[in-house]
Amino acid sequence: MRLFYDIISDKRDGRELSEKDISYFLDSYLDGSLSDYQMSAMLMAIFFNKLNEAELKVWAEKMLYSGEVLDFSDIEGPVVDKHSTGGVGDKISIPLAPLLAELGFSVPMISGRGLGHTGGTLDKLESIPGFSVNIGNERFRKMVREIGISLIGQTPQIAPLDKKLYALRDVTATVESIPLIASSIMSKKLAEGIQGLILDIKVGNGAFMKTFENAKELAQTMKAIGNRFSKKVDILFTNMNEPLGFTVGNTLEIMESIDVMKGVYVPQVTELTVRMAARLMVSFNMTQNIEEGEKKALEVLASGKVVEKFKKTVEMQGGDPNSIDDVSLFPQAQKKQEIKSNSDGYVNSIDALNFGKALVQLGGGRLRKEDDVDPGVGFILNKKVGKKVEKGELLYTVLFNDENKLRNADDYLKNAVKVGEQKEKEQSLILDEM
Amino acid sequence: MRLFYDIISDKRDGRELSEKDISYFLDSYLDGSLSDYQMSAMLMAIFFNKLNEAELKVWAEKMLYSGEVLDFSDIEGPVVDKHSTGGVGDKISIPLAPLLAELGFSVPMISGRGLGHTGGTLDKLESIPGFSVNIGNERFRKMVREIGISLIGQTPQIAPLDKKLYALRDVTATVESIPLIASSIMSKKLAEGIQGLILDIKVGNGAFMKTFENAKELAQTMKAIGNRFSKKVDILFTNMNEPLGFTVGNTLEIMESIDVMKGVYVPQVTELTVRMAARLMVSFNMTQNIEEGEKKALEVLASGKVVEKFKKTVEMQGGDPNSIDDVSLFPQAQKKQEIKSNSDGYVNSIDALNFGKALVQLGGGRLRKEDDVDPGVGFILNKKVGKKVEKGELLYTVLFNDENKLRNADDYLKNAVKVGEQKEKEQSLILDEM
Repeated sequence: MRLFYDIISDKRDGRELSEKDISYFLDSYLDGSLSDYQMSAMLMAIFFNKLNEAELKVWAEKMLYSGEVLDFSDIEGPVVDKHSTGGVGDKISIPLAPLLAELGFSVPMISGRGLGHTGGTLDKLESIPGFSVNIGNERFRKMVREIGISLIGQTPQIAPLDKKLYALRDVTATVESIPLIASSIMSKKLAEGIQGLILDIKVGNGAFMKTFENAKELAQTMKAIGNRFSKKVDILFTNMNEPLGFTVGNTLEIMESIDVMKGVYVPQVTELTVRMAARLMVSFNMTQNIEEGEKKALEVLASGKVVEKFKKTVEMQGGDPNSIDDVSLFPQAQKKQEIKSNSDGYVNSIDALNFGKALVQLGGGRLRKEDDVDPGVGFILNKKVGKKVEKGELLYTVLFNDENKLRNADDYLKNAVKVGEQKEKEQSLILDEM
Repeated sequence: MRLFYDIISDKRDGRELSEKDISYFLDSYLDGSLSDYQMSAMLMAIFFNKLNEAELKVWAEKMLYSGEVLDFSDIEGPVVDKHSTGGVGDKISIPLAPLLAELGFSVPMISGRGLGHTGGTLDKLESIPGFSVNIGNERFRKMVREIGISLIGQTPQIAPLDKKLYALRDVTATVESIPLIASSIMSKKLAEGIQGLILDIKVGNGAFMKTFENAKELAQTMKAIGNRFSKKVDILFTNMNEPLGFTVGNTLEIMESIDVMKGVYVPQVTELTVRMAARLMVSFNMTQNIEEGEKKALEVLASGKVVEKFKKTVEMQGGDPNSIDDVSLFPQAQKKQEIKSNSDGYVNSIDALNFGKALVQLGGGRLRKEDDVDPGVGFILNKKVGKKVEKGELLYTVLFNDENKLRNADDYLKNAVKVGEQKEKEQSLILDEM
């Protein structure tokens, strides 16, 4: 076997790593014969010189097969999942998963928690009274087979090498590397035993990818990995300069999701949910084109079947299905503050990053990994970007429990909504597709 | 204090590190609160984004003051040293140090061992019967004050941070970084308490710096550090495409050095020795110009005082001074093989890298750190590049002890000397000065 030094210097000097070298390097890391300090030098070299398609395939494959890979090949319909790179007010997974299940897909969805200023599907689901995201692999597989859906958190059996690498990246300034991000996401998703994946790449000030160029590179990198594993990968690039939909906060986002599942047309949220469903339907030849797929998805939402599927899901994961019809059963914030416009005009911007950070300050996200989340706090937007507003009219409501935390949040909210005299061009939600 | 993550990402993203951040980072590494894996990520980021002059000054300073810094400020004449970046047949330190001492300099010289295919001054000195390079700091300082010269190896008290960093670089593919090489060399040299330093930057296939561009960058980087510490730094760039002088191997190089010290004009070796002495004399206003300095140096060599100074040095470091006049007392190889020319023509090249590697194979250098060195083996060149040669005439002699090792060496020697019909332009020894 080659020296670790030589393998690291190959990457450092821009030479392609062979499959054998990558396998040996990653195997050695997992078994402890390659040390953390050698791996972190390699990770930093990858930050600079990236991984090409062939290298990435091996890298992702090693992470994937470092743990359990689920097998749903016995299921007849297509098995799919969705992943978002993270945003503010992004609750799409919640209405999308039961919608897909009603449309004939199976959805073994493994989600994450809030990271930095972005929310996490698991935190949102846990605001449903009794809902458990840790039901074990066996029950997870059973639910997917029986009702076509289950919504859980990552298990220790899935991609343990990714877990080890992520912990190292998190302390060595090697998180922000596109091939490392892409292989980390894809290895975990591929471990779900899916045939197709739809990716929502967020772009804008509230996203991790601030520029469209970076977002495109990440998308292409993930698609390349998926394709190398013969998976269908659909990609949307969506706007994350303003929060998605009208709510930010765990309970509030579940409530907005329930509206969507009940067939209420919630701008942006319903739009993105049905577009994603339609893209997957087209990919798996379940419909002629996007328009028809969207029509079908809207019909299924209107039928009431989607919310019933979600109730069933909640029930099978230990949650109270009655809460879905009676939102008073959700944990709610005790106090509210209404923010009104100081002038006549148009809403020109709603700063997603600052709303995300303000939510963390209110307790709705985590400052430290070990923090608990206060599910009830958050924001209800009354006017989205582009809307006319009069002086004194409500812009948004803050729901909170603690005056001190409100003050901390206010630092981020001060100029978070801008009202101007001119109506600026409304931003489209879906920026591009791939 | 800032997060280690943020300091690493500053370097990773090309932002200048503040003095405070570098100090905190390096102090934390030395006290163990910063881990090896964080340091190796930083080192790799430095490999890519380098250190600018201000950063380098702090980096070198932290390494310098991590250990003992000698103080010779009470000595009247200038205190100087010489450093070579490493080559094949490069024995200049040995005649230069006593020459400088005779010219009125004090020379507290701390040298290194052979590294890879390059020889080391310490290994050469140890071929002198009884000579010790580990005489302790106290005796070292005493010799410098009494006779103006002492020749030792690195001590644990000098720049311990450099030692710790070097050990990490050696296993993380971060050795080949110009700012890290420069700060490592300069911190150790500055710890000698010198006022001036002459650097011999080797360029060519037998040097670590293969291109003139890299060599210039290294030179500028070291000069910048030296100047920031108000030290005079003179620089020569010298040819390392062919071995320096006529010998390669520890005993052989000492014997050639003794010739130079006795006033024999050995092409290349005497030339470079007197040029370096003259450069230092000019820098410290001890002579009008280079020509005059060289004349003085040659006179002192011819006087016999230099070899006497060397004998005194040998004696004070436990060696046998009689060996300097009776080379039969040196360890010598038992066997020899003469390599002759297959054709009439001119010597067009003598491959320094291959001669260096062949010496290692003969046992004259180390394959592993813990290997012993066989002092007697090596090569005597009969015809240097540019010389006319007839078919059957001697090109060089191999001195060896072990037939198996000779066979391994032969792999490198096969095409190491090239004879052609045309006389190619002779390469100049001194390529440039700074």
